[in-house]
Amino acid sequence: MGNSDYVYPDRQSPHQVAVPPPQPFFKSFKNSLKETFFPDDPLRQFKNKPPSRKFLLGLQYFMPILEWGPRYSFEFLKSDIISGITIASLAIPQGISYAKLANLPPILGLYSSFIPPLIYAMMGSSRDLAVGTVAVASLLMGSMLGDEVNAAENPTLYLHLAFTATFFAGILQASLGLLRLGFIVDFLSHATIVGFMAGAATVVILQQLKGVLGLDHFTRSTDIISVLRSVFSQIHEWRWESAVLALFSSSSSSSPDTSELEERAESTVVWGFCIHLFVFFNSRADRHGHRRHCPRRRNSSGRSFAMLKQYHIDGNKEMVAIGTMNIVGSCFSCYLTTGPFSRSAVNVNAGCKTAMSNVVMALAVMFALLFLTPLFHYTPIVVLSAIIIAAMFGLIDYEATIHLWKVDKFDFMVCMGAYLGVVFASVEVGLVIAVAISVLRLLLFVARPRTFVLGNIPNSTIYRNVEQYPTTDSVPGILILEIDAPIYFANASYLRERLKSAGETSLQYVILHMTAVGNIDTSGISMLEEVKKTTDRRGLKLVFANPGSEVMKKLNKSKFIETIGQEWIYLTVGEAVEACHYKLHTCKPDSTSEEPQPWNKV
Amino acid sequence: MGNSDYVYPDRQSPHQVAVPPPQPFFKSFKNSLKETFFPDDPLRQFKNKPPSRKFLLGLQYFMPILEWGPRYSFEFLKSDIISGITIASLAIPQGISYAKLANLPPILGLYSSFIPPLIYAMMGSSRDLAVGTVAVASLLMGSMLGDEVNAAENPTLYLHLAFTATFFAGILQASLGLLRLGFIVDFLSHATIVGFMAGAATVVILQQLKGVLGLDHFTRSTDIISVLRSVFSQIHEWRWESAVLALFSSSSSSSPDTSELEERAESTVVWGFCIHLFVFFNSRADRHGHRRHCPRRRNSSGRSFAMLKQYHIDGNKEMVAIGTMNIVGSCFSCYLTTGPFSRSAVNVNAGCKTAMSNVVMALAVMFALLFLTPLFHYTPIVVLSAIIIAAMFGLIDYEATIHLWKVDKFDFMVCMGAYLGVVFASVEVGLVIAVAISVLRLLLFVARPRTFVLGNIPNSTIYRNVEQYPTTDSVPGILILEIDAPIYFANASYLRERLKSAGETSLQYVILHMTAVGNIDTSGISMLEEVKKTTDRRGLKLVFANPGSEVMKKLNKSKFIETIGQEWIYLTVGEAVEACHYKLHTCKPDSTSEEPQPWNKV
Repeated sequence: MGNSDYVYPDRQSPHQVAVPPPQPFFKSFKNSLKETFFPDDPLRQFKNKPPSRKFLLGLQYFMPILEWGPRYSFEFLKSDIISGITIASLAIPQGISYAKLANLPPILGLYSSFIPPLIYAMMGSSRDLAVGTVAVASLLMGSMLGDEVNAAENPTLYLHLAFTATFFAGILQASLGLLRLGFIVDFLSHATIVGFMAGAATVVILQQLKGVLGLDHFTRSTDIISVLRSVFSQIHEWRWESAVLALFSSSSSSSPDTSELEERAESTVVWGFCIHLFVFFNSRADRHGHRRHCPRRRNSSGRSFAMLKQYHIDGNKEMVAIGTMNIVGSCFSCYLTTGPFSRSAVNVNAGCKTAMSNVVMALAVMFALLFLTPLFHYTPIVVLSAIIIAAMFGLIDYEATIHLWKVDKFDFMVCMGAYLGVVFASVEVGLVIAVAISVLRLLLFVARPRTFVLGNIPNSTIYRNVEQYPTTDSVPGILILEIDAPIYFANASYLRERLKSAGETSLQYVILHMTAVGNIDTSGISMLEEVKKTTDRRGLKLVFANPGSEVMKKLNKSKFIETIGQEWIYLTVGEAVEACHYKLHTCKPDSTSEEPQPWNKV
Repeated sequence: MGNSDYVYPDRQSPHQVAVPPPQPFFKSFKNSLKETFFPDDPLRQFKNKPPSRKFLLGLQYFMPILEWGPRYSFEFLKSDIISGITIASLAIPQGISYAKLANLPPILGLYSSFIPPLIYAMMGSSRDLAVGTVAVASLLMGSMLGDEVNAAENPTLYLHLAFTATFFAGILQASLGLLRLGFIVDFLSHATIVGFMAGAATVVILQQLKGVLGLDHFTRSTDIISVLRSVFSQIHEWRWESAVLALFSSSSSSSPDTSELEERAESTVVWGFCIHLFVFFNSRADRHGHRRHCPRRRNSSGRSFAMLKQYHIDGNKEMVAIGTMNIVGSCFSCYLTTGPFSRSAVNVNAGCKTAMSNVVMALAVMFALLFLTPLFHYTPIVVLSAIIIAAMFGLIDYEATIHLWKVDKFDFMVCMGAYLGVVFASVEVGLVIAVAISVLRLLLFVARPRTFVLGNIPNSTIYRNVEQYPTTDSVPGILILEIDAPIYFANASYLRERLKSAGETSLQYVILHMTAVGNIDTSGISMLEEVKKTTDRRGLKLVFANPGSEVMKKLNKSKFIETIGQEWIYLTVGEAVEACHYKLHTCKPDSTSEEPQPWNKV
């Protein structure tokens, strides 16, 4: 095989590009609906089973406890008790602290670690998820409800609002799951989550300045400017004892001591114990490096652990379980719960085997509720603040942010957008900014596709992007362009301009490499028709290489294949170039109907 | 070359996939900004020119009349006078009718065909655009302002609001153009426009039932239900004479006659003349088939004609011109104007040469204003209705709708969404529905990419989608998958599930064909890392074929190339298969570090 003018073995019969067989509209419609909503095919296991078996499978589908319950062994129980008690030791201080974040009575945090885990143990399909309240959701709830009702002035109404909000959050989660719309959460990218969590953590930490500095008055806004103004306008009220104590209790596991605590020695012991456990487990979870896998979304901590242990989690089903748990919980004085990643990581490290560990945790929390409730009256705010701050620092994943900057600047922008939005405006603004940037990126990808000029890789019939492969040779008289996105209304006119402006020199053929064009719509086809007219007028021949099945289907239906001529569509760029070469050297381009005319500028 | 086990000539040295040379961040950032906002490079002509020349070019850039004015000839003038008078004969009756649609005094319609064309003649770069008011914008203005102020009760305030709205519409258009954001209008697809225009035309026609049936009271809502209820609740008030006249004057070019008109004979003559011209030119424009190319967007009629005559139109610059024309117009009692496609088509057919035809039209309209104004007091509503209905039927492009159904069901949905939204709710609702469906389609394309299984085309090293090419042979022991979209956060978890569930049989290699993967973000890279782990655990080797430059760059930065091994990235599927075949037949897969393990289900 020579370099420039080798003869292709079967030039006279290049491969045909196939138009896929037509599919009835409703069949293809059904298929695409199925791909959109049931990509994981959750009903596969029900196929070809007798009705009684189907009923049992259906029950097990919604109540996985029926599946693993009968196989439950004493060995499992031992592991689950250990892990259950471990996560309870996290759930108690965190529950109380996070309830404070939501401006709710601390005891609600414990209720929320009691009822929902029991529901999840029956309905959840993850074996590792530890159920409980989370800081960011608590903060969100507190700030959103605080806009409506002042918790201090009207505590009963505030409480009722909190339960109603939880109830409807549950309804929303369960319906998204039932309607198989869980994929909507895919639109929260990894970068969004990193930025959002770090921003929320920053806001939460700033809020704790009230407790840390022992301030009585504090702004109700969450943005950094209001908070700092509020803090620095009261410099004379700062209590250094309180700050030192907070620093001490958040950085070590020693027992705390405040002026309030002095009144009751018992609570000091309880709090000391809790913080000890908290810091211990937090650092342990860190050591195992779990925090590096930042949770993608609400129901993804379950999935991440499922991957470790290799079993399958259906995200939509998990959303139904978590939604039900919130619906039921809201009737029992619980507020918003989910499966926090950090606590689940502790659960896995402590060796949990099944969701029974949640039941054990619930029982431990119940024990705390029965016997330790009197102590909760004296909640030492400074210690709660310290607990929260220690937990929050774990959410600020600056290494992930550096990684984003290195690998993908756009993702970094998304992350910083979310962070700055949350810190300088509000949680909602941050979320909206991040989602808007992310979606804008998708739209820009489609609206501004790149067109590459391809060249021949020496001694082969392979044609590649000349920018990526600088050693390629250009083919004289032939311009080969690759389009790297679907051709849709959003980019049709942009591509038309690109294709028109390309190659102002004396050309004979323009080959469009279509492999990466996944789809085309009617605007795209109109654009190609215009390009065809322009190239005709300039005396150029338009040649297509390897259009995909969707594109061929559409081109066929719109009769554009007849316009361009089936013989000008080739399977590979190599074959197209070969055919052009042959025509170029043996005869004029066969444009009997459309004579090539010189392109006169008006 | 045999079929199953031929030997590739240079198997030992397959082509390397290149990592593109790293670009400084700000350079690539600048490039992508330029591609997004200046894809047409409007400043190209300013490069390497002396400052005085630059200044002249800059003036000509904003005032194209300085460019073509000096070259203006008497021949041009003759053509422009003919076409100018022709479009004036359209502008007068349409101006009056459309002003009625906006609930404005008819004379404003004439003002709007006087001042703005003069501005456009100086600033516009299209030689064919005829400036004037359009029905849909007038209707929109009427319905939106009507929500705020009742035109009958408070005419002065209504007028002021109309001018203010025009002013701000002009500011918006000019700023979008100046900020090079004209591409935003690309997001209105062809299908959206077809449905939206048909819906708006239906609404306008329904509104004319008031005039056609001679009703005194009429609903102020625009949706079909309110209108029909209003019409049929007043059956006893219908005036058949009026309806017959309307039918007659809209379907033929004979002179109209109404009870109101009888009072003044002159106006009958004027109106008859106008309708005659209107119907004549309307049918003429139809005959030339211009209406089939439905205007894509405001500034696209200019571009379509520019393509016919082969000169370049900068859409953003046109937006500046049209915006300025509205800003200036609003100060001279003009309301919203643009370049309507139908009138521009008439302009082209009448042989216009430059924007001077707009000046001629403006002068003709001024003549009408000076001498025919007394007649406008007796505006025969039924005739106006007939004019509007005749123009509106031209906007209902049912053939385009059938074409959409045949070629692309999704585009058809977009079109019907816009139509039904406009007809059953309001203009805004229709627009929002259509844009939402269009953008949803883009997002779904990215969120639910397709993965194809590739097979070998007999007697070649070409690998293609087995569904499109049923004659392909599968390669034993190797699964070849093609991904046809960029790998972004929105599809990363979907693709992970697809890749995991693919090929449950005994495989040795999974080849991912990446040509169509235009880009990847950090979520996508995490997904690939997970897939790599899963395949390792199942004892499979993950092989990449032809990742593009962006993908290679990201994979390199995130060190994923080291994870997968540079030697497992091939330039073509053929080379990848060949390498796998060789390893498969001569030795075990070289997994020294990661031993293949049987995949045990837990």
